[in-house]
Amino acid sequence: MTQQQYLEARQQALAYFEKAGIVLTEEEVEHFEVADFGLGDWRNVGLNLVTYVNTQRCCAKEMVLLPGQTCPQHTHVPFGDYPGKEETFRCRWGQVYLYVAGEPASPIRAQVPETGKDSYTVFHEIVLKPGQQYTLTPNTPHWFQGGPEGAVVSEFSTTSYDEYDVFNDPAIRRIPEIG
Amino acid sequence: MTQQQYLEARQQALAYFEKAGIVLTEEEVEHFEVADFGLGDWRNVGLNLVTYVNTQRCCAKEMVLLPGQTCPQHTHVPFGDYPGKEETFRCRWGQVYLYVAGEPASPIRAQVPETGKDSYTVFHEIVLKPGQQYTLTPNTPHWFQGGPEGAVVSEFSTTSYDEYDVFNDPAIRRIPEIG
Repeated sequence: MTQQQYLEARQQALAYFEKAGIVLTEEEVEHFEVADFGLGDWRNVGLNLVTYVNTQRCCAKEMVLLPGQTCPQHTHVPFGDYPGKEETFRCRWGQVYLYVAGEPASPIRAQVPETGKDSYTVFHEIVLKPGQQYTLTPNTPHWFQGGPEGAVVSEFSTTSYDEYDVFNDPAIRRIPEIG
Repeated sequence: MTQQQYLEARQQALAYFEKAGIVLTEEEVEHFEVADFGLGDWRNVGLNLVTYVNTQRCCAKEMVLLPGQTCPQHTHVPFGDYPGKEETFRCRWGQVYLYVAGEPASPIRAQVPETGKDSYTVFHEIVLKPGQQYTLTPNTPHWFQGGPEGAVVSEFSTTSYDEYDVFNDPAIRRIPEIG
């Protein structure tokens, strides 16, 4: 992603916070994270977020998904003394489709993205509308997608170690590689 | 607090969530917490909140303070294996005045409530406007008050054990006593 692409993507994402009445500081806007997971298909497989706080004990983020934009399937695994990340997604605006293991929906409401489509394996569907939330325990494979209008989603969790997330698609690079 | 008083207080508090564009489920409204700390002076010393999630590992709440309404001075102390609650306050709407130990402001912007006024001992002032936040480590005495328009404040924290909070005012009962 070029600097110009980043700025355009950021602007698109920030517009959703405005719709949801969520205020960021200038510094948060400056450091706003636009992730394309190294796949180069951000509009379809991407995530946009600000991390409010991430200490040794807990973490809170605010995320934006554009309509149909997908955060690809991944799992928060335990490592060392850390039992793995526990996270609660709370929909603030729009609608988000969340998929975990379990009885699959048929058909599902989301559209599996073309990019990396074989790496989506869980299809139990949870639809979150504003005010609705869902808590994921560690080691739960999951992916999620913005609904027809997109979504603003708060995440309340234990410490976030994005670098230890296990993505199903081996092409994914969660931490941007500068080179 | 009678049932009628509770319902009126709840209605007043919920109006602030509406202003801030924060959506609650019906169940959350139903179980909405209005705390008067057993002091019987809720309009001045009170706190209004919904707990979104409180697991063995982390916690998130959304709080309302009416204009000038105070959450009285308290400390999250360690106990057993628990190092004490760490919490981040993030102002979403309005303004909140937060007081911790340190160089006191003079004068402070808040007005110390008459009820239990001798139990306020820390006056280092932090003013939080929408988008601004502050993280408190365990064992930090603190109190906070809604600004002129009131405030909506998100709290992101480790597990919340309200029953172990230490309040400065010995008259305070954080957990309602029915009887």
